[in-house]
Amino acid sequence: MPRTDPTPSAVSAVGALGTGRVADVVNLTELPAAVDEVLGEFFQATSPILEAIYPTVGEAGSALREFVMTGGKRVRPLFVFAGRQCSPPASGDKITLSETPDALAETLRVCAAIELIQACALVHDDILDRSDTRRGNPTVHRRFEALHAARGWSAASGHYGDSAAILIGDLALAWADDLFHGATPTGATDQSAPHRPVPFDATAVWSQMRTEVLAGQFLDITNEVSGDESRTAAERVMAYKTAAYTVARPLELGATLGGADTGLRRELHGIGIDLGIAFQLRDDLLGVFGDPEETGKPSGDDLIAGKRTSLLAVGLESASDADARLLRESIGRELDDAEIAAARGALTRSGAVAEIEREIAERRDAGLARIDALGCPDAARADLTTLAHRVTSRNK
Amino acid sequence: MPRTDPTPSAVSAVGALGTGRVADVVNLTELPAAVDEVLGEFFQATSPILEAIYPTVGEAGSALREFVMTGGKRVRPLFVFAGRQCSPPASGDKITLSETPDALAETLRVCAAIELIQACALVHDDILDRSDTRRGNPTVHRRFEALHAARGWSAASGHYGDSAAILIGDLALAWADDLFHGATPTGATDQSAPHRPVPFDATAVWSQMRTEVLAGQFLDITNEVSGDESRTAAERVMAYKTAAYTVARPLELGATLGGADTGLRRELHGIGIDLGIAFQLRDDLLGVFGDPEETGKPSGDDLIAGKRTSLLAVGLESASDADARLLRESIGRELDDAEIAAARGALTRSGAVAEIEREIAERRDAGLARIDALGCPDAARADLTTLAHRVTSRNK
Repeated sequence: MPRTDPTPSAVSAVGALGTGRVADVVNLTELPAAVDEVLGEFFQATSPILEAIYPTVGEAGSALREFVMTGGKRVRPLFVFAGRQCSPPASGDKITLSETPDALAETLRVCAAIELIQACALVHDDILDRSDTRRGNPTVHRRFEALHAARGWSAASGHYGDSAAILIGDLALAWADDLFHGATPTGATDQSAPHRPVPFDATAVWSQMRTEVLAGQFLDITNEVSGDESRTAAERVMAYKTAAYTVARPLELGATLGGADTGLRRELHGIGIDLGIAFQLRDDLLGVFGDPEETGKPSGDDLIAGKRTSLLAVGLESASDADARLLRESIGRELDDAEIAAARGALTRSGAVAEIEREIAERRDAGLARIDALGCPDAARADLTTLAHRVTSRNK
Repeated sequence: MPRTDPTPSAVSAVGALGTGRVADVVNLTELPAAVDEVLGEFFQATSPILEAIYPTVGEAGSALREFVMTGGKRVRPLFVFAGRQCSPPASGDKITLSETPDALAETLRVCAAIELIQACALVHDDILDRSDTRRGNPTVHRRFEALHAARGWSAASGHYGDSAAILIGDLALAWADDLFHGATPTGATDQSAPHRPVPFDATAVWSQMRTEVLAGQFLDITNEVSGDESRTAAERVMAYKTAAYTVARPLELGATLGGADTGLRRELHGIGIDLGIAFQLRDDLLGVFGDPEETGKPSGDDLIAGKRTSLLAVGLESASDADARLLRESIGRELDDAEIAAARGALTRSGAVAEIEREIAERRDAGLARIDALGCPDAARADLTTLAHRVTSRNK
């Protein structure tokens, strides 16, 4: 039998990723493209490995690459970058990250890594939610289901699609760690540039963030089926699945890359929780009251999906008995326009909409005040302020 | 609305894991218990975090802990340890790893980490294979399916079980990286013992290993449905899903922890591929010819499961037309005893059984000869030899 041994030499050698290719990133607007460049380099390095293992495995890599490269607002990278700017590589307000290429390369790599976490989260969420489309394209499990059917393969197409998407999400999660630590599955190490390990404090935040988002997601799917109506349950999902993962930990992570002290880390984390919860509460309102033309989602989407949001929890707690009954009957099933309008009316009458709007304003203002008080470079505070407005005032 | 913010201070502080608790590991026999101790410490540190997020999330952690702690032969840790002993912490044959507590603690941590990769692989594989039991207990997805049903929760129990198991596997994969890098999701850093980063070469091998096992698994499920009968396809699954992941990369990983040079790494990797392929070929034979009393699996299990093994590929290639047809009709469906006996007869007549036995002997002997020629401490070579016999001569 011929031997097909995967020896270390069988894989192509590539240099370290994200070093020096991105000449300059001076503001937030330029960040997404710079992150995409690092991601593109990473996929260029990894594609040949998967192709060499077997052509069908190469298709898994292509699917992941297309998923990551076509779409996504790069929200988490923006907060990593903003956090990193809060602890600049040298003292003084005038030093920007772009003037220290090593620090910039490391930051962009971590930004790219967090987008791979997000890819795993979305690919797996789409299986959990049985979603057919994502960003206008078929979801990964539907893509492989269709490929299975088109090729006339044996057994159930749906189960193959789910199985393929589970493994592709796993690959994204493993690759996220590779990127975070500056490794690639090529096994290549750049001898010309000795490897600089990520600060251990950053690794610790990275660890917390991943556990929190997975725990939050587990709680979310469990609340949906258990019918837990408590505010606490809804708030915990919001705190861990959204606020910690989308804003607080990315901000703190960026700061630890620059060696931030405990005081600054704690303050950025607190700001991130305020902004992240405001972000999620806005999302909750849009999920029931949003205009499908703006959000791209069906009218009353969260009601139909049976999401156990804070908006719903406050509504159920404060509504009249009749309205609470109406709300409970409007959760987790198809609804026509009249039924959606009725549920909206019940939520508004209960005072929940006003209370959620009040908390959004409180959280946003608290976050903005804390940003103003940060002992950070002016440019960093300005960027954080921009982001704070962007995530709390959106209409889609 | 009361704030439930996950601040850094909300998580309990624990010291670094695996430092100094395990007094001594002087031989392979003692290793599994020492690895279990590190795993137990890790779960003790992480359980309160999940519990604090929400009680139902704590149940996810308990399920993972029970899965990892009850069963498993710790094969991959044995090879990590054997590899580590090949590049001892100091020169000379007499220095054992147990005399350098830091090196031992690091090695045990990496051994524990690889068991969490294995936990992810098994939990997710069980969804892919629709398996009901694992190690005599319900699989993780069946456990959560049953929990859902017992509590009378809404929506489909089966889908909730799968969803919960996807997230629990993800958690294991994320935690594997945490353990590998010495972090815990508690965010605690042990100030008394400054963190020593894992050598970057080890991180690179860790990266390769995870991509290889996921790629091999992806190829395996795809071959099963595509009906790819080529030897190459079967051999690639074996090389990546088993040989690289179970033996070659663990050995090499252990060696890189001790700063092994490229020559030793390449040699250990080659030995690992030989032994790993012999291991899988033995498994293929047992999967068709094994005694259910010994293997704990149903008679003819691989045939019924439709596994595209090398044994089957060689059989299809060498069998008469009639026997090839018989074999193709015996794949991927329920079989009675007479049908299993007929398929066994066809495989034996084709010469495939003899060829596979020959390759097992060749690979084992090549591995043993290369072990003898290693410029490593005697004790390391002796342990490797023991492991080589153990994985190639088993009957279950």
